[in-house]
Amino acid sequence: MDRPSHLDKSGRVRMVDVGPKPESDRRAVATVRVLMSNELLKILEDNTLAKGDAIAAARIAGIQAAKRTGTMIPLCHPLPLTYVGIDCEFEHEPPSIRISAETRTCYRTGVEMEALTAAAVAALTIYDMGKSVDRAIIIDQLRLESKSGGTSGDWRRE
Amino acid sequence: MDRPSHLDKSGRVRMVDVGPKPESDRRAVATVRVLMSNELLKILEDNTLAKGDAIAAARIAGIQAAKRTGTMIPLCHPLPLTYVGIDCEFEHEPPSIRISAETRTCYRTGVEMEALTAAAVAALTIYDMGKSVDRAIIIDQLRLESKSGGTSGDWRRE
Amino acid sequence: MDRPSHLDKSGRVRMVDVGPKPESDRRAVATVRVLMSNELLKILEDNTLAKGDAIAAARIAGIQAAKRTGTMIPLCHPLPLTYVGIDCEFEHEPPSIRISAETRTCYRTGVEMEALTAAAVAALTIYDMGKSVDRAIIIDQLRLESKSGGTSGDWRRE
Amino acid sequence: MDRPSHLDKSGRVRMVDVGPKPESDRRAVATVRVLMSNELLKILEDNTLAKGDAIAAARIAGIQAAKRTGTMIPLCHPLPLTYVGIDCEFEHEPPSIRISAETRTCYRTGVEMEALTAAAVAALTIYDMGKSVDRAIIIDQLRLESKSGGTSGDWRRE
Amino acid sequence: MDRPSHLDKSGRVRMVDVGPKPESDRRAVATVRVLMSNELLKILEDNTLAKGDAIAAARIAGIQAAKRTGTMIPLCHPLPLTYVGIDCEFEHEPPSIRISAETRTCYRTGVEMEALTAAAVAALTIYDMGKSVDRAIIIDQLRLESKSGGTSGDWRRE
Amino acid sequence: MDRPSHLDKSGRVRMVDVGPKPESDRRAVATVRVLMSNELLKILEDNTLAKGDAIAAARIAGIQAAKRTGTMIPLCHPLPLTYVGIDCEFEHEPPSIRISAETRTCYRTGVEMEALTAAAVAALTIYDMGKSVDRAIIIDQLRLESKSGGTSGDWRRE
Repeated sequence: MDRPSHLDKSGRVRMVDVGPKPESDRRAVATVRVLMSNELLKILEDNTLAKGDAIAAARIAGIQAAKRTGTMIPLCHPLPLTYVGIDCEFEHEPPSIRISAETRTCYRTGVEMEALTAAAVAALTIYDMGKSVDRAIIIDQLRLESKSGGTSGDWRRE
Repeated sequence: MDRPSHLDKSGRVRMVDVGPKPESDRRAVATVRVLMSNELLKILEDNTLAKGDAIAAARIAGIQAAKRTGTMIPLCHPLPLTYVGIDCEFEHEPPSIRISAETRTCYRTGVEMEALTAAAVAALTIYDMGKSVDRAIIIDQLRLESKSGGTSGDWRRE
Repeated sequence: MDRPSHLDKSGRVRMVDVGPKPESDRRAVATVRVLMSNELLKILEDNTLAKGDAIAAARIAGIQAAKRTGTMIPLCHPLPLTYVGIDCEFEHEPPSIRISAETRTCYRTGVEMEALTAAAVAALTIYDMGKSVDRAIIIDQLRLESKSGGTSGDWRRE
Repeated sequence: MDRPSHLDKSGRVRMVDVGPKPESDRRAVATVRVLMSNELLKILEDNTLAKGDAIAAARIAGIQAAKRTGTMIPLCHPLPLTYVGIDCEFEHEPPSIRISAETRTCYRTGVEMEALTAAAVAALTIYDMGKSVDRAIIIDQLRLESKSGGTSGDWRRE
Repeated sequence: MDRPSHLDKSGRVRMVDVGPKPESDRRAVATVRVLMSNELLKILEDNTLAKGDAIAAARIAGIQAAKRTGTMIPLCHPLPLTYVGIDCEFEHEPPSIRISAETRTCYRTGVEMEALTAAAVAALTIYDMGKSVDRAIIIDQLRLESKSGGTSGDWRRE
Repeated sequence: MDRPSHLDKSGRVRMVDVGPKPESDRRAVATVRVLMSNELLKILEDNTLAKGDAIAAARIAGIQAAKRTGTMIPLCHPLPLTYVGIDCEFEHEPPSIRISAETRTCYRTGVEMEALTAAAVAALTIYDMGKSVDRAIIIDQLRLESKSGGTSGDWRRE
């Protein structure tokens, strides 16, 4: 990986100063799909996994991760989340669980990273719970679906 | 999402008891691909992003996340990581960064979750650094590539 | 433990959305009693414990725990505590230390969990400091005493 | 609270040096009882609480807290937990939930604090989930039931 | 260390109640100097250290530490940082790196501790990265340079 | 700050792989001096500070920080500390508090960073406790004094 040299000034990581931005209601939704074998999907639907209820664990882990986003992602601002919700749906073609995470705040910056982090950690939790059955699980298409609020306005994935 | 009822016994989350397992050298490699616009890829290759060096930030965030896996994933055992390494490569078809995370320990349980968590948080960091240029970034195909050590033996993705 | 089955919708953990609530001054007081042997109580009163000043350690641990409540209790909202105070009193019938924790904020949700968590961790710290003298310590009657502020109004234990 | 003066030497908090102790298998069990109204107990048994499955949340919060004991209790040694398990039982006289937490390690020091912390945080989580129904919940009789392993030998509450 | 006895009241740690203070824009700048051998300074200037880019690591570690100040310093209030920036400069007489950390918030209390903590952890990171070359590194003159905002007004080191 | 360009290989941060190193007893001592006004020193000696016992708070904060070193310093390995001790001494010429932190482990890598981090956070805590009296406090000469154990052998500052 060959990258050009730069003065320190240009390569230096820096947090954006959100002080001058007004507080406003923000919302973001992120989704991810956890692809797995039919065998594991059936066990999760039947809720008969030896390690326990993977869906409940994934939801709680996702909510807790959203609250810790600011300590995990280097340039994220810590912010007062007013809501985090995680939804999980079983899908069969292909066999998978679709996770959707929604985050909200009333603050000077958006909550996209919190939604993405919540979805990612919920998906990692399903991997952890199911890996003794299927180690080949793939966490696929983690992405922002929509966000609203803030000076940059609303955005929705096409 | 309709799931059958169960006695508490079967749905109850429980950590696996790794006490009886012997310590052994363990290693795991996980990868993920961060899909982005050509415009953002060029900025990252040139290292001219306004927020600073996204690749350096992603590597450090990934390493730090690996060390905190046990506090993020509910049933993960805390373990003494002996090595974490993160590699990033620019790819052009499609425009993307490929992240590879390797973790090692000498302990009673494997380090797959640590490798996956490191790769996920490195990818999330690239999203965070690049989102002002391209909000549609997709974190794709997060998966275990290989693991070695332990009673279940070696495993490699086909 | 036999519990009826439910659609996922009804069993799903969800954070309350506090976004629509106005900020207001909130306050909560929680107490707990740490029951111990006369021997340990005397050592603590004399401040001659081998591990050091248990009361000072308990106070600081309680304050620090209050600040981390949002990362420990799954559905708690992170919030900006404006005050945490811990009081300890020696009692002799029965031999015990009574801990009182007060928390305050100006925010959209209450600080009851912060007061309870502070009192709990202060009590656990006294257990930890004193356990080489008395392993049978009991942490008793951890409870909310009062709270004020917010739409649900004031509350005081009868 | 009047305590005699001391030279710094005697009041100074100090971690016990566990370096000279051999590693051995350790186990601890702690219990706690969460006293509540009949109304709340029924809602929890029926698993119809608005905030979701309180028992699942309590178990996961307890497990995660056990892993963070070393960062919460000032003089606790960080240690590699090999097992954490949380059991919850509904009781009717008086209406309550009885929580039992078991922790294990193979290390130089015991896991009593980890078991007590897990039980405490599981109980606090039930408080948090149920407080909109019953704010007067009491967390009662948090205590060590037994421990085994280590030079001080086995201990069981009489 | 001989200290006079006191009633518990006077020795008791207590958080200042910042609830009554108005929110206002706050800013603080702290600096520190990392003294090292000419050999290590040259390696850092050439960016040829075996462990990688120490300056990038120091900046990110400092930013992340600023965000965790409230959980590290017992009586610090958690607060919503709106900006953290870290600058590093090479100096030759004596051979050293000068680190400057700036923090900002709009809140009821100041951000001096956040700036000092960021500078301290950035300096510790340089020690960690460079210690295989020079174990005698000295972290020198960590201090507040200026602060603005709040009822106590502006302050600048003479 | 002008630094030459490098292939990614050479600038990339990487954790040292300590897996091949044998476990051995390690020890490190770090010191720091907190320079302050005569007025503040007298208040601390008399233990009459409004915020409470600064020395007790500093010791506990230092011990807790030592345990979290691995999550703060990017390339530090998490390790099982077997001992942390913090000593504080009042000095009068110049007026200051001298802090000494000792850390121990039996592991594959040294505990220098843990000792330095403990000393730094203890010093920052004294700053925080005393800053309302003297904002010009300087944290001076944070440095390793000695370390023992490991393949690189013993080291002592000359």
